[in-house]
Amino acid sequence: MIKRIAVLTTGGDAPGMNAAIRAVVRCAVSKKVEVMGVFRGWWGLINDEMKPFDHRSVSGIINQGGTILKTGRCPEFKTREGQERAFANIKKNNIDGLIVIGGNGSFEAAHLFYERYKVPCVGIPASIDNDVNGIDYTIGVDTAINTALAAIDNIRDTATSMERIFVVEVMGRDCGFIALAVALAGGCEEVIIPERKFDLGAICHDIVEANLRGKMSWILVVAEGAGQAVDISKKITEMTSLETRPVILGHVQRGGRPTAVSRDLGLRLGQAAVDSLLSGVADKAVGFHGGKVVEVDFTTAIQKKELKIDTWYNLIKTLT
Amino acid sequence: MIKRIAVLTTGGDAPGMNAAIRAVVRCAVSKKVEVMGVFRGWWGLINDEMKPFDHRSVSGIINQGGTILKTGRCPEFKTREGQERAFANIKKNNIDGLIVIGGNGSFEAAHLFYERYKVPCVGIPASIDNDVNGIDYTIGVDTAINTALAAIDNIRDTATSMERIFVVEVMGRDCGFIALAVALAGGCEEVIIPERKFDLGAICHDIVEANLRGKMSWILVVAEGAGQAVDISKKITEMTSLETRPVILGHVQRGGRPTAVSRDLGLRLGQAAVDSLLSGVADKAVGFHGGKVVEVDFTTAIQKKELKIDTWYNLIKTLT
Amino acid sequence: MIKRIAVLTTGGDAPGMNAAIRAVVRCAVSKKVEVMGVFRGWWGLINDEMKPFDHRSVSGIINQGGTILKTGRCPEFKTREGQERAFANIKKNNIDGLIVIGGNGSFEAAHLFYERYKVPCVGIPASIDNDVNGIDYTIGVDTAINTALAAIDNIRDTATSMERIFVVEVMGRDCGFIALAVALAGGCEEVIIPERKFDLGAICHDIVEANLRGKMSWILVVAEGAGQAVDISKKITEMTSLETRPVILGHVQRGGRPTAVSRDLGLRLGQAAVDSLLSGVADKAVGFHGGKVVEVDFTTAIQKKELKIDTWYNLIKTLT
Amino acid sequence: MIKRIAVLTTGGDAPGMNAAIRAVVRCAVSKKVEVMGVFRGWWGLINDEMKPFDHRSVSGIINQGGTILKTGRCPEFKTREGQERAFANIKKNNIDGLIVIGGNGSFEAAHLFYERYKVPCVGIPASIDNDVNGIDYTIGVDTAINTALAAIDNIRDTATSMERIFVVEVMGRDCGFIALAVALAGGCEEVIIPERKFDLGAICHDIVEANLRGKMSWILVVAEGAGQAVDISKKITEMTSLETRPVILGHVQRGGRPTAVSRDLGLRLGQAAVDSLLSGVADKAVGFHGGKVVEVDFTTAIQKKELKIDTWYNLIKTLT
Repeated sequence: MIKRIAVLTTGGDAPGMNAAIRAVVRCAVSKKVEVMGVFRGWWGLINDEMKPFDHRSVSGIINQGGTILKTGRCPEFKTREGQERAFANIKKNNIDGLIVIGGNGSFEAAHLFYERYKVPCVGIPASIDNDVNGIDYTIGVDTAINTALAAIDNIRDTATSMERIFVVEVMGRDCGFIALAVALAGGCEEVIIPERKFDLGAICHDIVEANLRGKMSWILVVAEGAGQAVDISKKITEMTSLETRPVILGHVQRGGRPTAVSRDLGLRLGQAAVDSLLSGVADKAVGFHGGKVVEVDFTTAIQKKELKIDTWYNLIKTLT
Repeated sequence: MIKRIAVLTTGGDAPGMNAAIRAVVRCAVSKKVEVMGVFRGWWGLINDEMKPFDHRSVSGIINQGGTILKTGRCPEFKTREGQERAFANIKKNNIDGLIVIGGNGSFEAAHLFYERYKVPCVGIPASIDNDVNGIDYTIGVDTAINTALAAIDNIRDTATSMERIFVVEVMGRDCGFIALAVALAGGCEEVIIPERKFDLGAICHDIVEANLRGKMSWILVVAEGAGQAVDISKKITEMTSLETRPVILGHVQRGGRPTAVSRDLGLRLGQAAVDSLLSGVADKAVGFHGGKVVEVDFTTAIQKKELKIDTWYNLIKTLT
Repeated sequence: MIKRIAVLTTGGDAPGMNAAIRAVVRCAVSKKVEVMGVFRGWWGLINDEMKPFDHRSVSGIINQGGTILKTGRCPEFKTREGQERAFANIKKNNIDGLIVIGGNGSFEAAHLFYERYKVPCVGIPASIDNDVNGIDYTIGVDTAINTALAAIDNIRDTATSMERIFVVEVMGRDCGFIALAVALAGGCEEVIIPERKFDLGAICHDIVEANLRGKMSWILVVAEGAGQAVDISKKITEMTSLETRPVILGHVQRGGRPTAVSRDLGLRLGQAAVDSLLSGVADKAVGFHGGKVVEVDFTTAIQKKELKIDTWYNLIKTLT
Repeated sequence: MIKRIAVLTTGGDAPGMNAAIRAVVRCAVSKKVEVMGVFRGWWGLINDEMKPFDHRSVSGIINQGGTILKTGRCPEFKTREGQERAFANIKKNNIDGLIVIGGNGSFEAAHLFYERYKVPCVGIPASIDNDVNGIDYTIGVDTAINTALAAIDNIRDTATSMERIFVVEVMGRDCGFIALAVALAGGCEEVIIPERKFDLGAICHDIVEANLRGKMSWILVVAEGAGQAVDISKKITEMTSLETRPVILGHVQRGGRPTAVSRDLGLRLGQAAVDSLLSGVADKAVGFHGGKVVEVDFTTAIQKKELKIDTWYNLIKTLT
């Protein structure tokens, strides 16, 4: 029987992680289960940096970006020695199960750890990349999209007033989710993503042709994994002789007050993760799919997520 | 065959309506279908206030609140005479189908009109109340929730600093959706909604008891259909002798830049409505349910929507 | 010589108070002066609720609304007994001077206390009402105005879309500052303030006349001290037969992340207050006037502040 | 006597320009003076792209970023031929005076044009760089600072959660105003500006030393004119072995809804410019200085503006 669990956040921070922490702690406490808050992700397990959390420990955090547990990448946890130390600390602290809040890198590590030490572990998908397979949305992605969209709205003011071309680089190393979402909702003229080949010559041809018809301002969104705003911007100017400016939103997209969707998801999945862990689930992530809570094997969650790229892209082009 | 359609917005405005208008116009135009924009809802049909819309007519509106077509309640459309005039104008302008963007009041009117005159009509659910049955979310509700949430976050600063009790009245005449969503995501201590009886004496008892334990600030969210902030605030002060302040968010929740979710929904449902109407659908609304586009009979859409009130309410109470 | 000072926040909270606290603490510490943080305003002095603050005590608060020291009204401090206890605690804790962050009510109390006990006290004006005489802006008023303005922008969307009249009640019991600022920057059609008589009949006459010319939407801003939105709204409907809606922004205006201006003012005045107190100033408030830091006697600061009401009002009317 | 004036926006766009346009048009109209709106800055004068503006022409723009008149750089206006054509169009359209909304580049051009053709011209300072001499604030700078500050707040969430160093590049080619304002109000640890030499080795020394004391996150703000975030970020990593990330805010700072301060300034200076022009003023800019409207010769306005760099910088360092 599970009497004490530990909760940690790993990988990049995402807005709504604090809401998830709050729900994990308060739902567990309401079921008389003790909670240890582990600091700095896997690093805290390896170095025994953790402390007991109660109802009050998570007051006032629901609307804060980032994570009060702090987070980070942890190469040591990929070594046998690191894992042994983490396991020893889990035993020492009488921890019966783990809740890991993070993205698919976190779930891969959690799965390997489970394989070896059989400590029950349930994952809560939180990542601004929305790259967890088998569930619809990760915690944080809605906030990141809204932040990027506010930036696009600002840029549109200048693009229209000065009749310029802008290339806006958004997050997404392997995945065009944010770029597609922002391009659609921002009314952007073009989007370049890792999952889809692009022809800059053809794009420049469109720009020049539109320019002759009187359309003077363009916003191109590019996912960081598909190209760099500075390079693309330069090339467009070379090919079209039109003034082009790059913008790199970068880590601005990662922080900020979580939106209602990101908080709601954090709270509900925090509750679901506690329920799953207490009912004996291990080696799985919880998430919403088609409006319902589902449990997905870590090995499934870390697969490449399929997006309906063409439908999405075509709608963007129809609407501009 | 449908060669020309008309689009109108009716009932209360909701953020994202302009995104829907944009998608309806541009998707129709891309399929060589003409579009008439009708002004002031049903009133514009009755009074022949409409004009041709092209691709450019909907430029620069994607991030604007309200509706460029304007909207309003229209009692005349409930009369036989009003309907006759509307139908005559539809004939006169060679309109083969209607797209009505609005809430369940709009769909009820659209259904009655279809019953009598058989003008094909497809509805796009837009309303900040999220009260359309058979679909998950109406256009605008995500924006309204985020607006109310920002207000709650502000109030929390004062509630904590001054150790006061606040009663915040949010929209929702028959439906506690916004109130529940805001109470959960805002970390509020209590929520009062039309769908669930409440016992103010018991609430005051909880407040006093918590006060003795050192919890000095409370935020109670009340849906306008379940009570008035001013009254409830007064009663709490009478029963507890603690200072209480009412806040009425009112129409602030209705406007503002649409969030990513509200824009995305507007754009995708605009496209879906055009597709449905052109493929012969009539007397139905389009919407997302479980992540997929569905078509729902108007007669179903206007039924009372069931919410999992108790699960929701219990989570709110567990988390505070 | 001053070796230890105490800092407290009193009266209503205002965004930027935390920035002021941060500057007071860090500037004092940088000059080797110790700081006691007093909780709950005068109440904390009376009840000896205070603790030593160091550089780290004020980390991460610069962008938070409210006040980490908490605040409140304190009738006990108006009694001789309350003051005696406060003075005893000041002696007991070896406090050589006070920095009081608050509005003119706070300065009045501070002045009376100084008169009797001669504990040097410097005030930092923080109040969303901007009602401190002799200085240009209080900390917090810029944030409150921007918050109210965002609400007005939202309401404008609906006012325009639904062609309605709105009466928006903003803060300001004795002072129309927020109302005037919001009405001007929000492009509102009319403003009702305590400092200026108004004739609702004449306003309704204007509304009807404009309505006949095709101007259908109006936003009237009313300062709470000059009338209640609900009443005025009802009367306008009675007199004009036009639909009118009231909105009460209330305490939403008080919280929220401080704007750049409110933070900047908090930080600079925090520094100035420490400098003044250490250089021997007492019984005065610091503030900016005409771009320069000035010291104003508490007795002057609490006088009625003169505003150029007519110039302001006329500009609002010219611009609508 | 002046019967007809023209208004144009030149140089980079700034939030609040639309408020200024609104005030110019409505104040002139209220004094029975006709207004021509000139499009695309000087280019519109050269190419006779202008049209009559009335009260209604400027409805609904007060809260919009950018400029409805559009803007841009115009090298042709530096040529004799360009100026001749502009002057010919001014004569042709019976324009008796110009109001130019822009920064010091705009005022330099306006001054040269006045010298040669003696067309009365009054400038309204609008620029996000706050680089106009003799006045306190340009229209737009408050909005730009708040936008950058919101980005810094977001980055702080990640900096704290992941314990990283960030280098954030803000606007400011010759002027550190935005960088200093953002660094102070954002609680940033360091700021690099064109007006002040910096020693990256010393900064890295501080970072490492603080790191040993447990301070893990830093935000360095750099004005674009003083260095590039990408380069500085790389060098810090080389010198300290600590992970560092660059962020380039770029044109996001230029757009967006104007803040209350930017709107207020736009409206009041719009009024002042009309008053000055009608009273016979020429070759001057209007602005606020020490809380009062002043008129500044264009030749003074374009001088290098002095900032109290050291005081500002020292306060930033004291407070971190």
